[in-house]
Amino acid sequence: MPLPKAEITRLRALREKKHREAAGLFVVEGAKVVGELLAADFPFAEIYATPDWNPGGGVPPPRETPPTSTRGAETPRLQAISPAEMAKISHYPTPSPVLAVGKIERPPLPPGALDHGLTLALDGIQDPGNVGTILRIADWFGLARVVLSPDSADLFGQKVINASMGSFARVAAHTAGLADALAGATVPVLGCDLAGDDVHALPPLRDAVLVIGSEGRGLSAAVAARLTGRVTIPRFGRAESLNAAVAAAIVCDNWRRLAP
Amino acid sequence: MPLPKAEITRLRALREKKHREAAGLFVVEGAKVVGELLAADFPFAEIYATPDWNPGGGVPPPRETPPTSTRGAETPRLQAISPAEMAKISHYPTPSPVLAVGKIERPPLPPGALDHGLTLALDGIQDPGNVGTILRIADWFGLARVVLSPDSADLFGQKVINASMGSFARVAAHTAGLADALAGATVPVLGCDLAGDDVHALPPLRDAVLVIGSEGRGLSAAVAARLTGRVTIPRFGRAESLNAAVAAAIVCDNWRRLAP
Repeated sequence: MPLPKAEITRLRALREKKHREAAGLFVVEGAKVVGELLAADFPFAEIYATPDWNPGGGVPPPRETPPTSTRGAETPRLQAISPAEMAKISHYPTPSPVLAVGKIERPPLPPGALDHGLTLALDGIQDPGNVGTILRIADWFGLARVVLSPDSADLFGQKVINASMGSFARVAAHTAGLADALAGATVPVLGCDLAGDDVHALPPLRDAVLVIGSEGRGLSAAVAARLTGRVTIPRFGRAESLNAAVAAAIVCDNWRRLAP
Repeated sequence: MPLPKAEITRLRALREKKHREAAGLFVVEGAKVVGELLAADFPFAEIYATPDWNPGGGVPPPRETPPTSTRGAETPRLQAISPAEMAKISHYPTPSPVLAVGKIERPPLPPGALDHGLTLALDGIQDPGNVGTILRIADWFGLARVVLSPDSADLFGQKVINASMGSFARVAAHTAGLADALAGATVPVLGCDLAGDDVHALPPLRDAVLVIGSEGRGLSAAVAARLTGRVTIPRFGRAESLNAAVAAAIVCDNWRRLAP
């Protein structure tokens, strides 16, 4: 059944961030990323696919369902559309065979949550590729959660989700003002910094927070005031710094190596 | 003095890779990246700057020099141009205040070089951001060199150079067919893989090669045949893999931690 004009108008509007936020919906496009999120059981609300879409990768395609049935429920509403219709709703000049719509949910950080498990806290990481890569790292190392400061890249941006390689759907991610969130923490709160204790000599930590600052500005003053320590990765050459995601990964690897 | 029309034509042609390769010249644009490379004493041949360019960062701007004097010598030829001229020679829709031209040099790997020091070998890493980030990692950890397979991202692409944050000018980088280059190595040649020896339990290595495969295809068969071992980063969660640069960095950190 052709896509009603009102639906095209609604979906086109989601190209603009203000309309996505107003609707509480985000959009991802592309067979690879949609397939990764479906494989991770991400509960999309709506999927629009052209006949070219081959979900592949062992993921059974959702069955096409009538528009009134299950929006918001576990099975996404799948609508087959034509390439011409896709071109109208796609955010890209070159549309992909699939566009999926999900709910934007930004669960607050429950009180006391930081006291349990290993947490990565992102203090103004604005590069979406870095944020997505950090989600993937948190997923690989089985961290308890990632907390993003409100001035970090938006978790629901396509570049973040792409770079996470599916980890977007598997990692508990919260948005919170870091200075306030860290104020109540009773566990070590370590800042990743160029001057600090050697990451190779960290004590075994079961519960801790690692704060990663922005590459341009470093750790913010309000967050730096909450640190209980600083950790550094020994340097042997001349680069001024490491990429934020790279630094986070090295600390996570050492956390796990030294784990109690 | 205004930029002669023939110069504009020549510089415009460098927008195309075939003309860059024919001229043996590459182009980088942007105050940040040009400043980083000048700070690392990269021997640019030519620099074109509008009055808006402020080299800053403690780097003294090269003095403007006549076109006939020093091309190819140590001091780059600096030419002040107008924003309108920059718009004509820039590769970007939004020109920056500075465009620099350098020589493309791809030094072959000297015979026996791999037997000395720590080497990262990139086997078809096609993402330029990853290649640049790996140069930065090699620089941070003071590795002896990076070797790129011919099907890796071109070292002289702007995205590689940007992501390297200046390390492009400091790291010895060679392009070489990896299977042949590795055939003569007498040191451990480790492949980064999902199944291998625990990176935390590597022996102390002063001389070794780590091969990083492409994220999509993994290690090529010809290169895999040259490995003396495989190394893996212990996983605690559900991500299928780590980003290539992230994995390289974690192995480098362990190399340095365990170094003899």
